Amino acid sequence: MAAVTSMACRSAVALSSVSRPSSALRAAAPRASRTGRRSVNVQSAVELDYDVKVFDKELVSFAEKEEYIIRGGRDKFSKLPAAFAGIKSVGVIGWGSQAPAQAQNMKDSFAEAGMDTKVIIGLRPDSPSCDEARAVGFTEADGTLGEVFDVISKVDMVVLLISDAAQAKLYPRILAAMKPGSTLGLSHGFLLGVLQNDGVDFRKDINVVLVAPKGMGPSVRRLYEQGKEVNGAGINASYAVHQDATGTAADIAVGWAVAVGAPFAFATTLESEYKSDIYGERCVILGGVHGVVESLFRRFTRQGMSDEEAFRQSVESITGPITRIISRDGMLGVYAQFNDADKKIFEQAYSASFGPAMDICYEIYEDVACGNEIKSVVNAVERFGRWPMGKIDQTHMWQVGQKVRAERKEEDIPINPFTAGVYIATMMATVQTLQEKGHPYSEICNESIIEAVDSLNPYMHARGVAFMVDNCSYTARLGSRKWAPRFDYVLDQQAYVAVDAGKQTDAEVIQAFKSHPVHSALAACAAMRPSVDISVGGDNDNTGVGAGAARTDFRSVAATVA
Amino acid sequence: MAAVTSMACRSAVALSSVSRPSSALRAAAPRASRTGRRSVNVQSAVELDYDVKVFDKELVSFAEKEEYIIRGGRDKFSKLPAAFAGIKSVGVIGWGSQAPAQAQNMKDSFAEAGMDTKVIIGLRPDSPSCDEARAVGFTEADGTLGEVFDVISKVDMVVLLISDAAQAKLYPRILAAMKPGSTLGLSHGFLLGVLQNDGVDFRKDINVVLVAPKGMGPSVRRLYEQGKEVNGAGINASYAVHQDATGTAADIAVGWAVAVGAPFAFATTLESEYKSDIYGERCVILGGVHGVVESLFRRFTRQGMSDEEAFRQSVESITGPITRIISRDGMLGVYAQFNDADKKIFEQAYSASFGPAMDICYEIYEDVACGNEIKSVVNAVERFGRWPMGKIDQTHMWQVGQKVRAERKEEDIPINPFTAGVYIATMMATVQTLQEKGHPYSEICNESIIEAVDSLNPYMHARGVAFMVDNCSYTARLGSRKWAPRFDYVLDQQAYVAVDAGKQTDAEVIQAFKSHPVHSALAACAAMRPSVDISVGGDNDNTGVGAGAARTDFRSVAATVA
Repeated sequence: MAAVTSMACRSAVALSSVSRPSSALRAAAPRASRTGRRSVNVQSAVELDYDVKVFDKELVSFAEKEEYIIRGGRDKFSKLPAAFAGIKSVGVIGWGSQAPAQAQNMKDSFAEAGMDTKVIIGLRPDSPSCDEARAVGFTEADGTLGEVFDVISKVDMVVLLISDAAQAKLYPRILAAMKPGSTLGLSHGFLLGVLQNDGVDFRKDINVVLVAPKGMGPSVRRLYEQGKEVNGAGINASYAVHQDATGTAADIAVGWAVAVGAPFAFATTLESEYKSDIYGERCVILGGVHGVVESLFRRFTRQGMSDEEAFRQSVESITGPITRIISRDGMLGVYAQFNDADKKIFEQAYSASFGPAMDICYEIYEDVACGNEIKSVVNAVERFGRWPMGKIDQTHMWQVGQKVRAERKEEDIPINPFTAGVYIATMMATVQTLQEKGHPYSEICNESIIEAVDSLNPYMHARGVAFMVDNCSYTARLGSRKWAPRFDYVLDQQAYVAVDAGKQTDAEVIQAFKSHPVHSALAACAAMRPSVDISVGGDNDNTGVGAGAARTDFRSVAATVA
Repeated sequence: MAAVTSMACRSAVALSSVSRPSSALRAAAPRASRTGRRSVNVQSAVELDYDVKVFDKELVSFAEKEEYIIRGGRDKFSKLPAAFAGIKSVGVIGWGSQAPAQAQNMKDSFAEAGMDTKVIIGLRPDSPSCDEARAVGFTEADGTLGEVFDVISKVDMVVLLISDAAQAKLYPRILAAMKPGSTLGLSHGFLLGVLQNDGVDFRKDINVVLVAPKGMGPSVRRLYEQGKEVNGAGINASYAVHQDATGTAADIAVGWAVAVGAPFAFATTLESEYKSDIYGERCVILGGVHGVVESLFRRFTRQGMSDEEAFRQSVESITGPITRIISRDGMLGVYAQFNDADKKIFEQAYSASFGPAMDICYEIYEDVACGNEIKSVVNAVERFGRWPMGKIDQTHMWQVGQKVRAERKEEDIPINPFTAGVYIATMMATVQTLQEKGHPYSEICNESIIEAVDSLNPYMHARGVAFMVDNCSYTARLGSRKWAPRFDYVLDQQAYVAVDAGKQTDAEVIQAFKSHPVHSALAACAAMRPSVDISVGGDNDNTGVGAGAARTDFRSVAATVA
């Protein structure tokens, strides 16, 4: 899932960027392993050195690892003509969460750079979204609004922002329609996973690149607009070059990231991106946090708390103060502010929860990596006609939550040490698994921590869990439904049983938490945070996420084009 | 999972067996689709007409469908020499749940039939199971106990009873070691699923057949021994011919079923067997029932019942009286015994639960059919070294259960109409999905109902859920852990919410339940029940399932042979 990097970290870490001659390291395409469903490890970031010529790379340390990053910003728009050399038209396909934002940002950036590259929206002609596109200036009259496949067949670059499920269904037609030498742009590597499951590959005569903004579409647009006034506002993005048919794919990818307003762009691969993204939303970002709070609420009420108090000590505690402290001072900041007695409770809860959470995180990662999750999502969407996804917030606990939110005094929300221990153990398990599987730290931090504390949890805090879940992509929603109950059960059956049986805190587990390199990597990421926070609105308020939210929204017109 | 067909159905239905000339229908191999992971439907049973020559087939009606069945029994032992023509030795590989039973039964049957076909046990030489094998008369001295691959390379028929996970790991060596023209016997189609995932096939110069006894190993042995005295005692089996290299595979398969003591053998395919089996244990047989009772216990305590009362109204009600009534009078029997007020409660619970349960059942079926579940099991077993499966019965609810069982008065256990509605809806969803996917009724009844009410639920009633789960195969245990919480959540989020919101009972759903053809199919199956029940023991008692239980047990020696 997309995350908004609005880390308000006070202890900013200076960028240890080094400029070093990298010609020897340069490669036309990444050394990414594309073979392996069997091999679940992705390459480490230090090997990711794409052949970027127009923009300047900087080598940055994230904990013990170095990664190349690229600095964006409006002062880089002058490089866009060179980056988009030969691209006279960009077709943005779909009109979900990302498409309106990316299309308008690119159009504005191209104009600012004095380019005549056209941005054209591709939609089904009878789609209700056509009016929305026209309302912001994309029209048939000036050739910037057209039928999906007509647009795809004419443009030099296709930015494919229809839903995962629609991509899975339509990719043979889409790929076939593209011009030789054109560029396919994705904002999620999901399609690569689909192709791997189907045993096929992209056609070789096109570029395939990725730019994945770490925020939902409306935020991508709003912070871009603010960036015209406030220096540094914008949503960071990761980028990747999967196939470089023209020898210019890396600069096209970075140019795209800069044009949609990313202050910083982090290198990844399609494979690394889709694995970490689909995995992360199933773990602490969405599924994990849901399972954690369900299990805690049940535990606290069984221990005698009132429903309202149990909700405050579990959900409110996580989505409120714990989230804010992590965003500002990292996970260690939560630990540091406890007194000795509460530190002990935190340690016991963390120690008992980390192993069970790792068990589930590993299962999720390997189910994603071997293609199972993608296959399940594709199958599930086919069943929606018969069994549409139901709402999940009508249960007793979430009814209590609505009442608690209505009466909330923010400053009275407790920081429950047991809750913090369980939640942060689940977060660290999400981190640790990605680290063991070889993901770069910029990706680990985004997909395990930043997205949670700076994007999803604040939405959940403001409007409840159902709003959060229902505003995610089908891929995320299905994953959350699948894995939340697994975290719930494993914590209840293994972690809480161990605590209640008086099991001693494992000093090694606590030491590993305290000394984990992710803390300094997170601080390095925080230094690259945008200078403007997202806004999340409140109950019954449609601010922030827009109609669809998440990366691409199934309401997207092209989703039903077939 | 294996089920014990001890249906104590009082309303026995006469076998409508017809003898009809079937030469036109006969085929050397079944018309089973072996192509398709995409195509999840398996062929209907009426097409399943294996080329059995030695034994007599009977055409039997199960509801609106006809299936060929074969009658076993000790009076058919005289046909064994013809069925096993050319098979001078049968190697039984492993010593888990099934192997000791099947090996001893075959040995006894061959002796009874005056055959000199040897039964040889294949084990790792340093395995502790060797002593157990020697203790029942299989020794190196007389050549009936040897090293796994040595035995495989020498025998004319390999009966492979090592665990699913071990089969997945070892099959290349096992297949390579077999003699050309020999027969591979499986008691579970799991291996076919593994081969499909790996994109490979069985070598073409061997027979591949299946006999899957519908009961755990110790029951297979005990009822066989009772069958020497009590006419009709024995565990039914399904059988299949997947590959017929010699033209005699069907008779070898049926001969094997008869030799291990099956009173009746039902035709299936490897694909149909593994799909329905892996699916069924994830649904109402194991995962489903666990999720149902967790959700009901939580609901009832929230409504104000004491823990003990909530346990009685949920778990005890299902595993006790509801199970016994279904076994005796079918699902309609449970409905029929309620008064009008309770019928209404049953209907409301059933009506609200059936759709959500169908949603999960379909997801499970398609995850099994596309290979996801098998891949997940194989991956999970690889992780056991780091994260062994923990016990699941230490939570509050199951601690309550132990106390309730200790104080139980069987006759005081209530038949809760809400509980019955939810449970039977989950059972019917399990049935309905298998029916829509084209499984034969004999298989549907076994994998959805008979195994539950005549095997698993009685064990659960006697010794608790953990004993039941922990005595199943890894494949079943992993599946139960995965899907129980899904049933729990979907019932809580969709079904109970609808009931509490006062949603009206859907008359169509109730009518479909009442008029479903599975009721008469179940009665037809019940007429083929063995005449002796299984025994289940009690808490802290090791009667019944033996050390490993389920079809094949990972304690099996060959599991660690690699």
